[in-house]
Amino acid sequence: MLIVQKFGGTSVGDAARIKNVARRVVTKQREGHQMVVVVSAMGHTTDELIDLSRQLTDNPSPREMDMLLSTGEQVSIALLAMAIKNLGAEVISLTGPQAGIKTDNIYSKARITDIVVTRMRAELDAGKILVVAGFQGLNEFNDITTLGRGGSDTTAVALAAALKADLCEIFTDVDGVYTTDPRLVPQASKLDYITYDEMLELAHLGAAVLHPRAVECAKLYGIPLHVRCSFNDNPGTIVKEENEMEKNLVITGVTYTKNVAKLGIFGVPDQPGIAYLIFKMLADRNISVDMIVQSSMRDGINDISFTVAQDDLRKSLETIEEIIKVVGAQGYTHDGDVAMVSVVGAGMNSNPGVAAMMFGALADEDINIDMISTSDIKISCIVKNQFAEKAVQILHNKFELENIG
Amino acid sequence: MLIVQKFGGTSVGDAARIKNVARRVVTKQREGHQMVVVVSAMGHTTDELIDLSRQLTDNPSPREMDMLLSTGEQVSIALLAMAIKNLGAEVISLTGPQAGIKTDNIYSKARITDIVVTRMRAELDAGKILVVAGFQGLNEFNDITTLGRGGSDTTAVALAAALKADLCEIFTDVDGVYTTDPRLVPQASKLDYITYDEMLELAHLGAAVLHPRAVECAKLYGIPLHVRCSFNDNPGTIVKEENEMEKNLVITGVTYTKNVAKLGIFGVPDQPGIAYLIFKMLADRNISVDMIVQSSMRDGINDISFTVAQDDLRKSLETIEEIIKVVGAQGYTHDGDVAMVSVVGAGMNSNPGVAAMMFGALADEDINIDMISTSDIKISCIVKNQFAEKAVQILHNKFELENIG
Repeated sequence: MLIVQKFGGTSVGDAARIKNVARRVVTKQREGHQMVVVVSAMGHTTDELIDLSRQLTDNPSPREMDMLLSTGEQVSIALLAMAIKNLGAEVISLTGPQAGIKTDNIYSKARITDIVVTRMRAELDAGKILVVAGFQGLNEFNDITTLGRGGSDTTAVALAAALKADLCEIFTDVDGVYTTDPRLVPQASKLDYITYDEMLELAHLGAAVLHPRAVECAKLYGIPLHVRCSFNDNPGTIVKEENEMEKNLVITGVTYTKNVAKLGIFGVPDQPGIAYLIFKMLADRNISVDMIVQSSMRDGINDISFTVAQDDLRKSLETIEEIIKVVGAQGYTHDGDVAMVSVVGAGMNSNPGVAAMMFGALADEDINIDMISTSDIKISCIVKNQFAEKAVQILHNKFELENIG
Repeated sequence: MLIVQKFGGTSVGDAARIKNVARRVVTKQREGHQMVVVVSAMGHTTDELIDLSRQLTDNPSPREMDMLLSTGEQVSIALLAMAIKNLGAEVISLTGPQAGIKTDNIYSKARITDIVVTRMRAELDAGKILVVAGFQGLNEFNDITTLGRGGSDTTAVALAAALKADLCEIFTDVDGVYTTDPRLVPQASKLDYITYDEMLELAHLGAAVLHPRAVECAKLYGIPLHVRCSFNDNPGTIVKEENEMEKNLVITGVTYTKNVAKLGIFGVPDQPGIAYLIFKMLADRNISVDMIVQSSMRDGINDISFTVAQDDLRKSLETIEEIIKVVGAQGYTHDGDVAMVSVVGAGMNSNPGVAAMMFGALADEDINIDMISTSDIKISCIVKNQFAEKAVQILHNKFELENIG
């Protein structure tokens, strides 16, 4: 088999852990597999480099930031390759550019456009373990780019797709994907299987063991992912297309995002293009909008509500003042102290009553719901920040998630 | 003018010093010059990376070591570029590979084979300051190589040659080149000028402000070097071809290397190829030989003496045992606790009596000379380690070096 393994920053945080990863990789190779290992920067390296840059400028050039941050992974691959070689295996480290990873030109959040596998194939054919720097690539100007948050996960999945790997293992510091945050709900269960779509909803919503971009890429190319712990040999969670058995699971997880801000614009003229205009103005100011809810109940005018990160509230309010002038709305409201709580499950769309169960469970505890948004496999509610944890606990209990997996 | 400036690791050791370098570079650019800046890794970065590697293996792959160490300079160029940009100047950082620096395939001590200046020219023409990583290049396998000790000096001079720069300034933490080590002889004077050859002898012998490879390269391409301090605006020492005025200086410096080992093989058959055989066997074991002295006083047999670093003594003795068997010598002697003291000056070959003055000064202080070796511009003596500093002081005094410069 050709196996791609990805180890995060915690897994290569010091010399002892790097040796541990080396042993794991070499053991797997000696079972007869071809191995490609993707690593992140060691522990807090990236944060330390960012701190250094902040001492020099408040507004670093994104190109120079990528030049700076890409060194973190380069250190990791060199050290891991040394540790693997020390165990007697043939190995070569490759930076993102050397591995043939091509990206677009958007520094600090580049997207992979192509992977030229020539060199990787040649090194694999020569019997070597490949240790590839995650999070980085090369753009058309021959400049180093980084892939932004979750970039190393994306590198691993993209390499698995380009090399037609049989399996992609994502090693992390937790045992797998849980039905909710185990620190919050001790009864949370580890899931043995989860579909790409469920994983996407969970990852987007805060159960951040695997970056959504990586899941999207895995779904696109049909790469099965195995999310597991780098400190033990326990099986983790397999992420793949749904099969019959999983259909029986109505809800696979409860997740939440705290510190959200809710904004509402009321009395918006009901004309084509108005929503576009509003969210274009927000996007132009680099404000990421999460949930959007619009309801038309009166003739000719609409109310539009949406959520943003609490940190973006001030910028959002300034933008809304402009929006109101441009689109001719009547006014706006905001609440900067709310949270989003969601239940996720691929089975819910064939199972009526999930929404009612959710709303009822919250009502039983006197938790008021400010906004509701649903998709095929997710129902999200906005509640006051202070009730977020409690809401997760009662929903996890209500949907009996403590014994699934 | 096109000016290449090189700043060592101490000069970019922290954020404040990086800002200082940025100000210096931008000031120069605003005077109307095109600027290319070469930097080393920050302070102790390289040592820290080496420590990390030692925790993983006693015998790191040189390729992986270069992959590891080259990150140090990459961090420096990104940070310096940010600091320069923060002052409002246009700037771009370039790794050695991006700057078009091609090397041979000898990892950890690669030599520059070519510099493809296309990109550097384009960026300079676009009005940008170039910040180039010293110490590194790219080999024919598309792998990163490092140039070994003194590599950043060599990068600076090679870039100056390739770009046909008007001046190459080497910034360091001392004021320039001194007649001897000022920590040892307080009367040591800074030299205003020194020839390439004198600088070569001084640098080889321990006055290590500028690496010999860089001086050789500067001499080859006729690049004038200005060695100066990065913490003030004082003029330093200009290194260039000798002119009339300098011819008057008989001796420009006194230098020394402590902790040397002296070895002698006696009764060596006087046949062609014997010396080759001896030093080939030493070279094959990676033992660097410094001074070599051979005298033929008896018919058919020779004595050959040479010096090595003290650290190489044990390996040298093992090799000598083999050598004696192979070449049929009578025996050998050694002294592992000696030092080399040298006087250097381009004027000495037109000035008889310098050697006699040197030997006399040492004799006056009862310092015994174990070995003597001379070149056109240098006389070196081997003395007991314990007399090294004293020898330097009396020679500096004897040749009246306290007021030249």
